[in-house]
Amino acid sequence: MAYLLSELAEEFNLQLVGNPDASIERVAGLDQAGPGDISFYSNTRHKNALQACSASAVILSEDDTGLYAGNKLISGNPYASYARIAQKLHPRHRPAAGIHPTASVDATARIDATASIAQNAVIEADADIGANCQVGAGAYIGRGAIIGAHSIIFANATVHHGTRMGKHCLVHSGAVLGADGFGHARDAAEWIFIPQLGDVELGNDVSIGANTTVDRGTLGDTVIGDGVKLDNLIHIAHNVQIGDHTAMAAGCGIAGSTTIGSRCTFAGQVGVADNLVICDDAHFTGRAVVLKNINRAGVYSSGILLDETTKWRRNALRFGQLDTLYKQIRQLLKESDKK
Amino acid sequence: MAYLLSELAEEFNLQLVGNPDASIERVAGLDQAGPGDISFYSNTRHKNALQACSASAVILSEDDTGLYAGNKLISGNPYASYARIAQKLHPRHRPAAGIHPTASVDATARIDATASIAQNAVIEADADIGANCQVGAGAYIGRGAIIGAHSIIFANATVHHGTRMGKHCLVHSGAVLGADGFGHARDAAEWIFIPQLGDVELGNDVSIGANTTVDRGTLGDTVIGDGVKLDNLIHIAHNVQIGDHTAMAAGCGIAGSTTIGSRCTFAGQVGVADNLVICDDAHFTGRAVVLKNINRAGVYSSGILLDETTKWRRNALRFGQLDTLYKQIRQLLKESDKK
Amino acid sequence: MAYLLSELAEEFNLQLVGNPDASIERVAGLDQAGPGDISFYSNTRHKNALQACSASAVILSEDDTGLYAGNKLISGNPYASYARIAQKLHPRHRPAAGIHPTASVDATARIDATASIAQNAVIEADADIGANCQVGAGAYIGRGAIIGAHSIIFANATVHHGTRMGKHCLVHSGAVLGADGFGHARDAAEWIFIPQLGDVELGNDVSIGANTTVDRGTLGDTVIGDGVKLDNLIHIAHNVQIGDHTAMAAGCGIAGSTTIGSRCTFAGQVGVADNLVICDDAHFTGRAVVLKNINRAGVYSSGILLDETTKWRRNALRFGQLDTLYKQIRQLLKESDKK
Repeated sequence: MAYLLSELAEEFNLQLVGNPDASIERVAGLDQAGPGDISFYSNTRHKNALQACSASAVILSEDDTGLYAGNKLISGNPYASYARIAQKLHPRHRPAAGIHPTASVDATARIDATASIAQNAVIEADADIGANCQVGAGAYIGRGAIIGAHSIIFANATVHHGTRMGKHCLVHSGAVLGADGFGHARDAAEWIFIPQLGDVELGNDVSIGANTTVDRGTLGDTVIGDGVKLDNLIHIAHNVQIGDHTAMAAGCGIAGSTTIGSRCTFAGQVGVADNLVICDDAHFTGRAVVLKNINRAGVYSSGILLDETTKWRRNALRFGQLDTLYKQIRQLLKESDKK
Repeated sequence: MAYLLSELAEEFNLQLVGNPDASIERVAGLDQAGPGDISFYSNTRHKNALQACSASAVILSEDDTGLYAGNKLISGNPYASYARIAQKLHPRHRPAAGIHPTASVDATARIDATASIAQNAVIEADADIGANCQVGAGAYIGRGAIIGAHSIIFANATVHHGTRMGKHCLVHSGAVLGADGFGHARDAAEWIFIPQLGDVELGNDVSIGANTTVDRGTLGDTVIGDGVKLDNLIHIAHNVQIGDHTAMAAGCGIAGSTTIGSRCTFAGQVGVADNLVICDDAHFTGRAVVLKNINRAGVYSSGILLDETTKWRRNALRFGQLDTLYKQIRQLLKESDKK
Repeated sequence: MAYLLSELAEEFNLQLVGNPDASIERVAGLDQAGPGDISFYSNTRHKNALQACSASAVILSEDDTGLYAGNKLISGNPYASYARIAQKLHPRHRPAAGIHPTASVDATARIDATASIAQNAVIEADADIGANCQVGAGAYIGRGAIIGAHSIIFANATVHHGTRMGKHCLVHSGAVLGADGFGHARDAAEWIFIPQLGDVELGNDVSIGANTTVDRGTLGDTVIGDGVKLDNLIHIAHNVQIGDHTAMAAGCGIAGSTTIGSRCTFAGQVGVADNLVICDDAHFTGRAVVLKNINRAGVYSSGILLDETTKWRRNALRFGQLDTLYKQIRQLLKESDKK
C-alpha cells in the first residue's frame, strides 16, 4: 500500500519540503533506503548515511533540514514520527474476524463480532473479548477475564481468570498473566500455600513480552499502568504496582508488593526487592539491584565491570578484605596526621 | 460459603476467644477487613491496624491476645493458621471431572475418573493421571508421565515423557518439565548433542512456577524433593537434586548436577554453578552467585549495592585497581611499622 | 536395539581393543555400567571408577588404554565419540509421519510427507515443513515460516511468521521465535511502538532451549549461526547476530543489535548490552556483564564472590567509598615519597 508524501505529512501533522507526490511504500534505514522508502535521521553519527541516502523522503528535525537535499518531513520528534508512519505503512497482518471452528469458547463468554479467535484458542466462562481483539492460536483466556478493544493475545499466551486489561494491549506468546503469586507461610519445615485471591489489571496500551509472567495479587490486585512496556522474560510478582509509561527491558524481576512510579526505565536484568517504593522518573542501568526505596528521580547502577578473568579474580578476592583495607587506611591516615 | 468461627477453631485446632457463632466468609487484610472477614496479626508494624480492625475475627498469637478486643483465634503460628483457613474459605475453582471432547488422550493413558482434562489438553501413551488431578487447557503430558493425585497442571504447561510427580503438585502455566538437559561434547568447533536419558522426578506438594524449566537428567534423574516451592522463570538444569522444603524466588538458575539441601531459601535471581553441594538450611539473599560448595548453614550474599550512576561509576572503576590498592596499603603499613 | 562393538568401532572410525562381538545396548556412567553398557573415560578424577568398571566396553584415549583391562574403543576425543554412540544407541522416540487429525494446517502450507504434525499443532499459510520434521503438540508455526529437514519443534513452542531455520534444528517447548522486538520511540511521556519488520533466521544444527525467546529484527533479521546452542530462558533481542558454534547456558540475555562471534561460550546468566561487537572465541564466566566491545579472544568475568551476609555487608558498604579510599592511598603514598 503506497501513500503520497503529502498524505503522510497531513495525517501526522508534519511540514513537507520537496515533492508532495512522492510515493511512499515502506520504511527503511538510511543505508538501505531507495525509491519508495521513507527513512529518518536523528543522530549525528548517521550524518554521512543521510547525505548519501536515496530514500524517497527522510523525516528529520528543523535543525537538520540543511543536511539533506531530498524530500523531507520536518518533525519535532523524528523518531516518534517515524514510528507512527511505520505503523501506518506496515500494519500488522489481521486474521479475519470470527471464531475458528477449532477454538473452544464457553457459551457465556462475550466475543465482539469484530474479534478474531484463532485455532485452538480457549475462552472460558464470562470472559469478555472486545472489538477488534485477536486471540491467537492456543491462547488461553480464563473465566471472567476482560480483554479490551484492539488488544492482541498472541499464540500460546495464557491469561488467567479475572485478569482485566484496557484497550490496545499486546500480550506476546508464552506470557502468563494471573498465575498464583508466590505466597507460602512456613510451619516448621513445611510451606503452607496462601491462596492468591487478587487479580491482574493492565491499563491501556500495555505491552507484555514473550514468556513474561505477571502474577495475580494475594489480596488486592497486581496493577500495571497505562502505556507500560515490558520486554521478554520479566517477572512481576504479586501486588506489584507499576506506574504509567514505565518500561523494562528483558530479564528484570520485581518482587512482591513493590510500587514503581511512572516514566521509569529499567535496562536488562534489573532486580528489585519486595515491599519497596520507587519514585517517578527513576532509571536503572543493566543488572542493577535495588534493595531500598528510591525517593529521588535519577539514574542508578550497581555491579562490577568486566575484566579478564585472571585480573578479575585477583581483584574479586580483595573485595572480601575491603573493610579491613578501609580500617588500615584509616589507621595510616591517623598516624600520618600525628606527624 | 460461610463457616462459624467455632467450626474453624475446631478444624484447625485453635483456641477461640469471643463469639463462637461469628460467621466467617472470607479472608482480608487488617486494614480492609469488615463483617464476615477473618484476618491475622503477626507483625508489630501492624499494631495500629489491628486495633482499628473491624474483622469478624483475627488470628493471633497468645502473646498478642491483649492487643485486640474482638473475636480471636489463638495460634502458635498465626500466619500458617491463616494460610490453612484461607485455603478452606477460598477453595480453587474446580472444573468438572471428565475429559473435554477437544482433549487428545491416548488409548493407553490411565485417567482417574475423578480427574479433569481440559480443552485441547494432550495426554500421550501410558501416562497416568491420578485422582482429582486437573490438566489445564492446552497442557501436554508426555508418554509415561505420572501425575500424582490432587495435582494441577495449569493451562499451556508442558510435562515431557517419563516425568513423575507425587501428590498435590502444582505446575503453573508455561512451565516445562523434562526438556532436554543442555549437554554437548565439543568436537573441534562443533558441539555434539549428548542424549538426555534421565527423567524428572518431583516429590509431593511441589510447586513449579510459571515459565520455570526443569530439565531431564543426562543419565539418572533430576530430582525435586517433597514440599519444594519454585517461583516463576527459574531454571533447574539436568541432574540437579533439591532437598525437601527448599524454596526459590523467581529468576534463580541452578546449573547441572548441583545438589541442594533441605529447607534452603533462595531469594530472587540467585545463580548456582554446576557440580556443587549446598548443605541443608543455607539461605541466599537476592542475586547471590554461588561458585563453591556451602558446607555450613547460614546466610550468604554477594553483589554490589545500588548507587547513583555517576558515583557508582567512579567506584566501579576503582574495583579494577583493588589488588594494586591492597599492595600499596601493605607497603604503607610496612613502612609505618619500620618507624 | 543392540550392536556389536565391532559395528560401533567401524561406524565411528574407532580402534577396537578386546572382543569385537561384545553386545552393546546402551550407555551408562562408569559407576553404574554393567553388561551391555558402554561408558567413557576422559577425566583422571574417575580413574578408580574406570578400573572398577564392569561395562561391556569403555571409550578412552590412546594415552589411557593402559588403565583399563576390558573391551575398549580408542578415540582422539572420547567424549565426542561417546555422544555420537549415545545418539545411535538411544535414538529419540519418533512419532509416526503424518498430520494428526486435531492439527490445523492451512491449505497453502507445504508439509513433507515424512514429517509428523502432532495433536493441535497449528501451521499457518505458506509455511514449509521439511522432511522428517516433527512439530509437537500445540506448537504454532506462523505464516511463511520455514522449518528445515530433520528439525523438531517441541510441544507448545511458538515459531512466528517468517522465521526460517536450517536442518537438524531443535526448538524446545515454550520457546518463542519471532515475537516483536522491543522497540519504542519516546514521545513526551508516551512510548510509540516501532513495527518490527525483520525476521528470525537460524542456521543448521541450532538448538533453542525451553522458554528461550529470540525476537524478530526491526529492519533486517535476527540471525543465529550454524551449530549455535542456546540453553533455557535466554533472551536474544532484535537484530542480534550470533556466530557459528557459539553456546550459551541458561538465563543469558543479549540486548539489541549486538554481534557475537563464533565459538564463544557464555556461562549462565551473562548479560550483554546493546550494539556491541564481541569477537570470536571470547568466553564469559557465569553472571558476567558485558558493557563494551570485546576485541580479543580470552576469558572474561565480572561480579563479587559469595560471602557470609554479615561479612559481605561490611565490605559492600565500603565499595561505595572505594574512590575515596583510592584517593587517600594516593595521598599517603605521596607523603611517604616525600620522606
